[in-house]
Amino acid sequence: MRLRNVKNAKEILDNCDFLIKNPQDYKGQYQKLFENNNPICLEIGMGKGAFIRQMAMHHPEINFIGMEKMSSILARAIEHLTPYNLPNVKVIRADALLLPDIFSKEITTIYLNFSDPWPKARHAKRRLTSEIFLKAYDGVFKDTKTIIQKTDNDALFESSIISLSSYGYKIEDISLDLHQTDKENYQTEYEEKFAAQNIKINYLKASKR
Amino acid sequence: MRLRNVKNAKEILDNCDFLIKNPQDYKGQYQKLFENNNPICLEIGMGKGAFIRQMAMHHPEINFIGMEKMSSILARAIEHLTPYNLPNVKVIRADALLLPDIFSKEITTIYLNFSDPWPKARHAKRRLTSEIFLKAYDGVFKDTKTIIQKTDNDALFESSIISLSSYGYKIEDISLDLHQTDKENYQTEYEEKFAAQNIKINYLKASKR
Repeated sequence: MRLRNVKNAKEILDNCDFLIKNPQDYKGQYQKLFENNNPICLEIGMGKGAFIRQMAMHHPEINFIGMEKMSSILARAIEHLTPYNLPNVKVIRADALLLPDIFSKEITTIYLNFSDPWPKARHAKRRLTSEIFLKAYDGVFKDTKTIIQKTDNDALFESSIISLSSYGYKIEDISLDLHQTDKENYQTEYEEKFAAQNIKINYLKASKR
Repeated sequence: MRLRNVKNAKEILDNCDFLIKNPQDYKGQYQKLFENNNPICLEIGMGKGAFIRQMAMHHPEINFIGMEKMSSILARAIEHLTPYNLPNVKVIRADALLLPDIFSKEITTIYLNFSDPWPKARHAKRRLTSEIFLKAYDGVFKDTKTIIQKTDNDALFESSIISLSSYGYKIEDISLDLHQTDKENYQTEYEEKFAAQNIKINYLKASKR
């Protein structure tokens, strides 16, 4: 996701009370942070936060953590989320490859929404469903590993299916045109633009026991 | 595949020297029938035979068996194939559910091209990638089980991915737009029509060890 630089990003992050500033310190302790025993879901690359905000509003029985590595993007998400004051939303600034240092057996579902497709073959490892990332996710899951992906990019989707399948995930649900299904779906900012252009959205849910 | 009734279908079948009339008698013996040790691939629902004909011509090192349950369709395929006199092609008239009676550990790859999508949920079991068919295929494979599917029908494709994945197959290769790839591809009669209308063709290769 590309955004113009947010000038006061540092200030926005510093003043945010739902940003976990030192996530490594909470490894294995996130349940305490939320002060409940509800499941914890993670969105990697949360964009402006529209997805996690809607999910959190419709599912108060689930905790959500949004992860974003770019301060400028995270600042936008914080600006978007702040007025809703959602007790079941926290955000983290970190790279997904650092996940094994941040979580330990406490995440039930990882959401990957409109991730960077990294179309060049030499950048395939950077895709969030490449083996290197799937390995990083392994230790963060509580029990069954579940990854839910949405993307308009067919090449990323194809690559994800092959990679997930090779890594032992089963594709439990899939749609090549999510908006034509009756699945519960909360749109990201990008997704709304695509929908307006009649671009089909791919969706998959993969699990590994 | 729908075709007008071929009046002299019985005569065409009776006179065909590459139709295996009593396939059950060859169970476990197909290698002898082809008089070589080349791998044997099976196409279930061969339509008019254009796919198997092109595959056989380009791959003399592989044996192909085309299977079709409707006499009238099989007669058309025989008419199409006869002039080419291909030593590595045989055809069978049978229902795919009877496969366990016909083959025993001798098939390397099953091709499913533009199979009937059976769109109604109550007919899902009739799809050639439903669990009931995947079970029927189990015993026919020589070693690694490999299924290659092409279809223009997204719902059939989605259903196939879920079913194959649930049954333990890994999706090793996939394309949501086969004709935009550089994969070796021989078009069926239907596929040529779809291509002319810019309809995207889905492709997958799934394997189970």
